[in-house]
Amino acid sequence: MSHETLDAAAGTLPAEAIDAIERAATSAHRHEELFSERAANIRQSAVRDVFDISMRPGLVSLAGGSPYLQSLPLDRLAATAAKIIAEDGLTALQYGSGQGSEELRTQICEVMAAEGITDALPQNVVITAGSQSAQDVATKVFCNPGDVVLVEDPTYVGALNTFEAYQVQVETVEMDDEGLVPEQLEARIAALQLAGKNIKFLYTIPNFNNPSGITLAAGRRQRIVDICRSANILVVEDNPYGLLRFSGEPLAPLRAANPDDVIYMGSFSKIFAPGLRIGWALVPEHLQRRYYLAAEAVTLCPPAFNQMLVSAYLRDYDWRGQIETYRGLYAERCAALLAALEEHMPPGTTWTRPEGGFFVWVTLPEGVDTYPLLRKAIDAGVVFIPGAAFTPSDDPSNKLRLAFSAVPPEAIAEGVRRLAPVLQQAIAAL
Amino acid sequence: MSHETLDAAAGTLPAEAIDAIERAATSAHRHEELFSERAANIRQSAVRDVFDISMRPGLVSLAGGSPYLQSLPLDRLAATAAKIIAEDGLTALQYGSGQGSEELRTQICEVMAAEGITDALPQNVVITAGSQSAQDVATKVFCNPGDVVLVEDPTYVGALNTFEAYQVQVETVEMDDEGLVPEQLEARIAALQLAGKNIKFLYTIPNFNNPSGITLAAGRRQRIVDICRSANILVVEDNPYGLLRFSGEPLAPLRAANPDDVIYMGSFSKIFAPGLRIGWALVPEHLQRRYYLAAEAVTLCPPAFNQMLVSAYLRDYDWRGQIETYRGLYAERCAALLAALEEHMPPGTTWTRPEGGFFVWVTLPEGVDTYPLLRKAIDAGVVFIPGAAFTPSDDPSNKLRLAFSAVPPEAIAEGVRRLAPVLQQAIAAL
Repeated sequence: MSHETLDAAAGTLPAEAIDAIERAATSAHRHEELFSERAANIRQSAVRDVFDISMRPGLVSLAGGSPYLQSLPLDRLAATAAKIIAEDGLTALQYGSGQGSEELRTQICEVMAAEGITDALPQNVVITAGSQSAQDVATKVFCNPGDVVLVEDPTYVGALNTFEAYQVQVETVEMDDEGLVPEQLEARIAALQLAGKNIKFLYTIPNFNNPSGITLAAGRRQRIVDICRSANILVVEDNPYGLLRFSGEPLAPLRAANPDDVIYMGSFSKIFAPGLRIGWALVPEHLQRRYYLAAEAVTLCPPAFNQMLVSAYLRDYDWRGQIETYRGLYAERCAALLAALEEHMPPGTTWTRPEGGFFVWVTLPEGVDTYPLLRKAIDAGVVFIPGAAFTPSDDPSNKLRLAFSAVPPEAIAEGVRRLAPVLQQAIAAL
Repeated sequence: MSHETLDAAAGTLPAEAIDAIERAATSAHRHEELFSERAANIRQSAVRDVFDISMRPGLVSLAGGSPYLQSLPLDRLAATAAKIIAEDGLTALQYGSGQGSEELRTQICEVMAAEGITDALPQNVVITAGSQSAQDVATKVFCNPGDVVLVEDPTYVGALNTFEAYQVQVETVEMDDEGLVPEQLEARIAALQLAGKNIKFLYTIPNFNNPSGITLAAGRRQRIVDICRSANILVVEDNPYGLLRFSGEPLAPLRAANPDDVIYMGSFSKIFAPGLRIGWALVPEHLQRRYYLAAEAVTLCPPAFNQMLVSAYLRDYDWRGQIETYRGLYAERCAALLAALEEHMPPGTTWTRPEGGFFVWVTLPEGVDTYPLLRKAIDAGVVFIPGAAFTPSDDPSNKLRLAFSAVPPEAIAEGVRRLAPVLQQAIAAL
């Protein structure tokens, strides 16, 4: 607390409270030196910054990538939850296995088979607190401070936060409309290794990348793994959206044909319910043990009830049908967003056309910084995430992310109508 | 995989499988160098080692510290869970705040008030995946590799695993029947600081310590905090059992009179249900922000449904009455264990007499190593945890932990009857 604030407060506070404030200020100073080096690197996520703002009534939030849960059979799920607690409460409310229940790990293998991973074994699956925790554990197990992780540019803000927390040096690889460019990846690895850097893994979201919406072309996938294998680098494949392709069959994950070189991360957050915080990692057999022990050291075990509810959902519900519902719903919303952008965006603006997932990535003319536009957009009644959140660079960004997953088509159109003049004004001011 | 195993397998496997095994063995070798330095420090917990064994029918498990959930009102909890999902499913199954819900953080302040912390503010509470995760975050935020954490000897095995995962140097402080000895703590700190060590915090379980069952005497508590404050060391107070005192009022936590110097950790695992994985940290105001951001980087947010179920339990149920039930139940089981030890333990054996919690700590004559006795005990139909698990030292330990929480009195007596000859034989062989 600054002296100014302290002085201002002093007029209205009893002496005892002032003592408390001064004592806390002294402690703050005293304890400052106790923080770890990594603590200084842990930042507030820009996505979380606007989380509370997004909830304000009247605002159209194109910020958060929340799934649209209204289409879930809540009454039936309520009955299932009740049955689990009434009939199996002594298991559901008790400690369980650190790796996760065998039933759910077996079912997760079926879910992965629906995307093309057909050889996964339950013993190589580790259930985690969402795939955020799976990333945290992977970074913990592989990265010393100063080690390099390669990422797409742009990439998921939560992963960047994890890497920063472990003092990892994050290096970006260029993408085009078909995702990571193999030649760029090869060149980047060569340059970094020549400079003596320890590259540990490539972190990639190959399907409907968060935030860009871009998908890694099928024809590039094996080449990306081969390049990493040759350079002795692991691939960490984060695939929460893969089953949410608007049309056609899912592309085979990088993991499918490469069981020894890819740590695959999945999640029920987008295909079922994020509030249960159940994700997983499929870990190559020779890396599984250390990965599992590290996960256990963080949370002891994943919540038993939550695993049982997901298991019941996969066993007794038409989860594939629900994914079909989601696919249709998100396809419609994406189309609404693209149509609204076509209608309202000022000249000089471009955007991606995703084949699935939750996000569209908008690029403004060079020289526009989208970060200060957020405040203006909120005043105009719409929220987005500025592009700077999704890159390790500190430079201003002329990009922004729009999420279409949680908002009905009419509201999406209204949001874009509100956003357009804010962007137009910024472009005109160049 | 060794060559021997590979040769043995080769006779029965098709050529394709042999290829796969050889490929994985090559990958294992190739990827070995990718592990972080900390990964080498992550060990299997001895408690988890025997977790599966403990489940075998016919065995009496005095190993795991699981709460006895049979006394919970499961039918009513089932109805509550159903109501939450049916009426508030869109919140319960969705992403939520990274810090945890305000309702639950407010209620947690009431729970802490029941133990004597009367000035806690909801904004300084961070909800975590059990208190295991709260320890993980504290270590992440404060400890660089090589920093020192002070612990009781013995102390909680899960905390030791966390500290090892962060390459912390764990130093023990001597205890007597009244807990940490202030003079020993003072001398240990002085010696370590003289040696140039960076001590970050004292980790302590002041009530019914896991595994020793020992309680830090009321008269020593302020002195312990004062010593740490003088040395500019934080106190991390882990208090999952404090409300489970068999008789009389709970002792005031170290945090109660020391809001700026103690990070306090609580849990619903022992007073409600561990399977929900809901714990918390009450963090000094000036440390709260970095702690909270680090927690968010690990799991994004705690599970919303689980928080709502705990909130409903604290709001609509007689949670204080349930704690009374637990206190009576565990007091009875503890008495049964102490009586059985009195009756069956061989001469030369001593044990603690806890005033609450889950555990009794047994000491055998010097020279007995309890680790190899575990296998013999399992053959005799009883499981315990060897003392070596609860200390950072690699020396053999003549101690063992017995948990009375999950086992009815008759079974406890039978377990001790089975254990006694195993111990007697080991003593006779000295």
